[in-house]
Amino acid sequence: MTELSLVKVYKKVRQVSEDICKPIKAEDYVVQPVVDVSPPKWHLGHTTWFFETFILKPYAHCYREFDPAYNYVFNSYYETIGARVIRTDRGNLSRPTVEEVYRYRSYVDNAMEGFLKDDPGPEVKELLVLGLNHEQQHQELLYTDIKYILGHNPLFPAYSLQTVEKPVQQVTAGVATVPAGVYEIGYGGTEFCFDNELGRHKVYLHEFNISNNLVTNEEYLQFMEDGGYKNFRYWHAEGWDWVKSKGVSGPLYWHHIDGKWMHYTISGLQEVQPSEPVCHISFFEAAAFAAWKGMRLPTEAEWEVAADHLNWGDRWEWTNSAYLPYPGYRRAAGAVGEYNGKFMVNQMVLRGASVATSAGHSRKSYRNFFHPQHQWQFTGIRLAE
Amino acid sequence: MTELSLVKVYKKVRQVSEDICKPIKAEDYVVQPVVDVSPPKWHLGHTTWFFETFILKPYAHCYREFDPAYNYVFNSYYETIGARVIRTDRGNLSRPTVEEVYRYRSYVDNAMEGFLKDDPGPEVKELLVLGLNHEQQHQELLYTDIKYILGHNPLFPAYSLQTVEKPVQQVTAGVATVPAGVYEIGYGGTEFCFDNELGRHKVYLHEFNISNNLVTNEEYLQFMEDGGYKNFRYWHAEGWDWVKSKGVSGPLYWHHIDGKWMHYTISGLQEVQPSEPVCHISFFEAAAFAAWKGMRLPTEAEWEVAADHLNWGDRWEWTNSAYLPYPGYRRAAGAVGEYNGKFMVNQMVLRGASVATSAGHSRKSYRNFFHPQHQWQFTGIRLAE
Amino acid sequence: MTELSLVKVYKKVRQVSEDICKPIKAEDYVVQPVVDVSPPKWHLGHTTWFFETFILKPYAHCYREFDPAYNYVFNSYYETIGARVIRTDRGNLSRPTVEEVYRYRSYVDNAMEGFLKDDPGPEVKELLVLGLNHEQQHQELLYTDIKYILGHNPLFPAYSLQTVEKPVQQVTAGVATVPAGVYEIGYGGTEFCFDNELGRHKVYLHEFNISNNLVTNEEYLQFMEDGGYKNFRYWHAEGWDWVKSKGVSGPLYWHHIDGKWMHYTISGLQEVQPSEPVCHISFFEAAAFAAWKGMRLPTEAEWEVAADHLNWGDRWEWTNSAYLPYPGYRRAAGAVGEYNGKFMVNQMVLRGASVATSAGHSRKSYRNFFHPQHQWQFTGIRLAE
Amino acid sequence: MTELSLVKVYKKVRQVSEDICKPIKAEDYVVQPVVDVSPPKWHLGHTTWFFETFILKPYAHCYREFDPAYNYVFNSYYETIGARVIRTDRGNLSRPTVEEVYRYRSYVDNAMEGFLKDDPGPEVKELLVLGLNHEQQHQELLYTDIKYILGHNPLFPAYSLQTVEKPVQQVTAGVATVPAGVYEIGYGGTEFCFDNELGRHKVYLHEFNISNNLVTNEEYLQFMEDGGYKNFRYWHAEGWDWVKSKGVSGPLYWHHIDGKWMHYTISGLQEVQPSEPVCHISFFEAAAFAAWKGMRLPTEAEWEVAADHLNWGDRWEWTNSAYLPYPGYRRAAGAVGEYNGKFMVNQMVLRGASVATSAGHSRKSYRNFFHPQHQWQFTGIRLAE
Repeated sequence: MTELSLVKVYKKVRQVSEDICKPIKAEDYVVQPVVDVSPPKWHLGHTTWFFETFILKPYAHCYREFDPAYNYVFNSYYETIGARVIRTDRGNLSRPTVEEVYRYRSYVDNAMEGFLKDDPGPEVKELLVLGLNHEQQHQELLYTDIKYILGHNPLFPAYSLQTVEKPVQQVTAGVATVPAGVYEIGYGGTEFCFDNELGRHKVYLHEFNISNNLVTNEEYLQFMEDGGYKNFRYWHAEGWDWVKSKGVSGPLYWHHIDGKWMHYTISGLQEVQPSEPVCHISFFEAAAFAAWKGMRLPTEAEWEVAADHLNWGDRWEWTNSAYLPYPGYRRAAGAVGEYNGKFMVNQMVLRGASVATSAGHSRKSYRNFFHPQHQWQFTGIRLAE
Repeated sequence: MTELSLVKVYKKVRQVSEDICKPIKAEDYVVQPVVDVSPPKWHLGHTTWFFETFILKPYAHCYREFDPAYNYVFNSYYETIGARVIRTDRGNLSRPTVEEVYRYRSYVDNAMEGFLKDDPGPEVKELLVLGLNHEQQHQELLYTDIKYILGHNPLFPAYSLQTVEKPVQQVTAGVATVPAGVYEIGYGGTEFCFDNELGRHKVYLHEFNISNNLVTNEEYLQFMEDGGYKNFRYWHAEGWDWVKSKGVSGPLYWHHIDGKWMHYTISGLQEVQPSEPVCHISFFEAAAFAAWKGMRLPTEAEWEVAADHLNWGDRWEWTNSAYLPYPGYRRAAGAVGEYNGKFMVNQMVLRGASVATSAGHSRKSYRNFFHPQHQWQFTGIRLAE
Repeated sequence: MTELSLVKVYKKVRQVSEDICKPIKAEDYVVQPVVDVSPPKWHLGHTTWFFETFILKPYAHCYREFDPAYNYVFNSYYETIGARVIRTDRGNLSRPTVEEVYRYRSYVDNAMEGFLKDDPGPEVKELLVLGLNHEQQHQELLYTDIKYILGHNPLFPAYSLQTVEKPVQQVTAGVATVPAGVYEIGYGGTEFCFDNELGRHKVYLHEFNISNNLVTNEEYLQFMEDGGYKNFRYWHAEGWDWVKSKGVSGPLYWHHIDGKWMHYTISGLQEVQPSEPVCHISFFEAAAFAAWKGMRLPTEAEWEVAADHLNWGDRWEWTNSAYLPYPGYRRAAGAVGEYNGKFMVNQMVLRGASVATSAGHSRKSYRNFFHPQHQWQFTGIRLAE
Repeated sequence: MTELSLVKVYKKVRQVSEDICKPIKAEDYVVQPVVDVSPPKWHLGHTTWFFETFILKPYAHCYREFDPAYNYVFNSYYETIGARVIRTDRGNLSRPTVEEVYRYRSYVDNAMEGFLKDDPGPEVKELLVLGLNHEQQHQELLYTDIKYILGHNPLFPAYSLQTVEKPVQQVTAGVATVPAGVYEIGYGGTEFCFDNELGRHKVYLHEFNISNNLVTNEEYLQFMEDGGYKNFRYWHAEGWDWVKSKGVSGPLYWHHIDGKWMHYTISGLQEVQPSEPVCHISFFEAAAFAAWKGMRLPTEAEWEVAADHLNWGDRWEWTNSAYLPYPGYRRAAGAVGEYNGKFMVNQMVLRGASVATSAGHSRKSYRNFFHPQHQWQFTGIRLAE
């Protein structure tokens, strides 16, 4: 990338975050209805803080910090960088206001654009690309968190009448068979990837079949109607506890109204479409559905090897792989090293990408990860056996 | 009151609520940092819902409800009126927006003003006066809740540079002595009072002394410096558990900064003034201070009998009386009957009024009540023995 | 009392505690199914520790402590005496064993009997009488806690086939009317009483009626059948939360089996007798029942003034009085001063005595107190209006 | 096995459980100081219930159940078998008594011995071997749970003066290097194994080094003295939360007394021996130690492939593998199928065996598993890189 294109790419990615927030009201930027959801103004501030903290403050000599208190407000989990607002308190902060957060963004963007006019050197470029990929991850969270905020409001306000959650058509049904053998997985290219995708390494796979398509709402409804949520046999013990203690009886956002299955979409309440891939289900539900079918979820290695043969269904796909380091994995030094490694316990890997993933952000080797009970991402099911 | 003056009084009281909110930002209207604090927009909506629900809907024949979903959002605790947002969830609702809430107020105010042009009859007048007193109670909560929201923000924003918490001078020190005998307490007038102040009844009091002035910051600091928060002897058992589990070491809003005691006031962080009455302390702290002094808190009957001899110090004063019904107390029928009686357990009575009480709202027989651990009201200490 | 009778009384009271435990097994001495229930071996050790700590160690010169670690194990809530096992952990301690606890009792009893042979002086005598009354309080708790331990076991074992919970006949029905006036309450005699009963003082009472009899199971069943547990109108707000969050639908120990109301008694599961006074209900339930009847609970002053006209029904009777100090109340100095005063918040007063109260322990001025949600004592309802 | 030897093996394994409990008192059998620890009498009853439920009731025609209520008391987690005492309540049950549990064991043992005199057929033999292996797993839990019960008592009673936790000498230090390649893991023999060890399958391993010896107390103390518990860099995010919220500062049972590191062993408090393998550490601690060393934990496949070259150190060894199904894994039908598969989420695999493992119970392919925060098993650390 030339320096000019650096600035262009920077501005383009940064703009997307603000575009996502255009349809919402000042009040929507503030609330945090559950701990996993962050207020949109926090996402906007935090991604800005990333550039200020890791690029401007250490590398841009004349840079004057916007407000020292913001470090405390917008740090997410970087212990290296000091004290921070605890996660459950993000929704208790009315200040800085939305306007102040946008002013913070402009201020940092101006400084960044000035700074990037001269070649900042490879170390900064690497941090810049990391920062932009980081911002794209938060763009997906902006969608999922706004959906949660509006979708849990008793007035069910629509985010936008334009269809963000566009209908998905899965054309070629069927199954791909992959023969046994030693395969390579992990990122092997020369562009950016996250450290958890490195390095490319060999795995032995036994022969397996994997479905081309994702499980549809229609199939999932059969599971529900067959008592899937009432029969412990299909569930992990911790999944069954989760079903009972939370009273879960279907995907997040589903409501049974006047005899019909409706779901809250980002365009408001709509009827569930049978042919669409099921969405907003937890790992526990994905695994229980697979058990009910007499099948299983693929591992992440199987998924990656078969990826070229699969229809993508605009859902993150739960795998049956725990999120663990690849052979030879080492955390980066310093605060950036807190990015991935420290989360490698008690989470499951998801592969693919969703309707809310920023264009060009994901790839075949991309490893997303969430705790097994989470439903609020755009998550779906692919079966293997 | 003539019908004309009814409208005038209605408009005047309603206006005060909006005036209180003038200095705050849209974001400040939304959050709920602890369960006892409600979002300002909820207070504005709830007081409006009271008039809509108890006057317009039953009595104004052509009235069309603003939005049926608002009943669910703005009901506080009236089980009679149906389901409601649970109290801990008030801060999770970004909608209705602040603008919509103000639109709701205008709509209801217009309807009320039209309705009140003709004589609405004594039953409605009684509800109207109750609704206005109810709104005044929420005006005090608006102050205390806004103070909490801003005072717990790491940026410590001021609410207003005009001094709302004005300095209090307590001139005549000393002690009033009241001889033993049978006295009468409770409301005996012909104006409005809450049902918990009725009926006027006899009590026997033993001779007692009561301080003319409230305890000052200076005296309270002596208690703190003498290890008051580290010595279980002064505390109720539940108070001592509260001190230890919450790590309480002083009044709410106090910060020890660079060797000085500062406190957050509604005008921002300021130095603690020794001669001012101590504020924002819980019943547990008031009782512990009194025990340290070798004195006690007055009962509510003692307070009421002695009231004419006391300087008022712009603090609600904790008494050592539990909130219980007066002889002959009966709850009103219907939803309005849920106003007071159902709270008559596990709360302590406060007497007087505070700097944040709406003008003319309180009176000698007024019974305020809170749980013994609450600090966020403008509460102080008067001693007796 | 002569010294001889001191020893006799001491031995007699101490023996009762051990007699109460005769029917139970070693395992029953150990468990603590809820925080309010203590393991029987803890009661046996704690009452012994009281004599060792407050009499033998300070006054008996050659006394050698049984085991210094026992101070940590058997202290209940005396902050003055040092660290202690937290209350929720009492049921986690398998040691000291039951046998060791009985050895501890013998050791302390021997020392006490030797010590009491010579006149110990008035100060010690006072502590001795306090210790014996304290032991009697724990004797009642031994009954209620053993009942809880066995009554919550899925095997429903009987404690004893002899009837401890003997049938209660309430003969003279009717109502006593007490005229308005100034009365005196509080302990006025010269024998032992607890400090919370002192001093005798005047109260003004308005005219009231009070039932001679306690509410029966039959009457309480009418309340249940009339939907008493499903109608918020009868309940305090905190009582209604308690009903809903705990799923309460009747008195503790009641089970609806094969269309009949059975209750666990200390002799095992038995049919509920309609004419018996209802038992094991909380203050919340007592108050709700009274509200359903259109009546109320008496205050403790009313109860004491009317006491001579009432049939006692072998139940502690909830009053509508909060547990607060009498005029002129002062805590005793030292550890003994922690006995009563520090509990004077958030609890309600009960008057009378129950089937499990040690003979001669209670009196007309006796003030028992528990939190409003507690059901596990032998508690009943008397109505007033 | 002939039928004669079946009975012999059955009696021998069953006797071991009772031998383990010989040194403890009736009270020690009852308590449950934390949810993961079960009362010893529960273990004795539950293992007996297994034979009664899965063999005697379905296969022994004239068998009369000992007590139908025991099914409710002694079921652990088999949803197929019906309702059960919730796990946190096991320590609240004083009945059945210890004596009754031993009577239950005798009754079932007599029935089993009679039943096994005739050839019971291959299906029953399989269940029998499963039941005996199940009992051996509970024998290890009996040791760890008794240690927890006594080691958390303020009196620190010894279990036995005979050394159960015998000193471990690790002789051949050094490192084994395993070259890259395709290896086979999983159980390949013809004797009993658990379903989670099946089937034998290929894995590709990259070259790795693995230590012959386990990490010693001396090495672990260096980590502690170097601030290992105060530096977030070494920890998983969830591990760091665990350290801070629980205040963890060393292995379970360690106490710093008079300047020396002592630890509670089953023979009482003893000095920590520097050359012994560190014990009672969680996965979080094992991983943090490895990070501090600049190394890592082995995967379970690496461990199994290298196993023949390793000194065993009498500790279960945490691996960095999540507990997941092997290729082709299927749960068995019926209640027995609840044995392993439903736990395959959020747990980490441990390999090897410990000082408390029953002789002959473990093997190279054995997969033990616990949640990453658990310390109360005899767990240690082996490093790889």
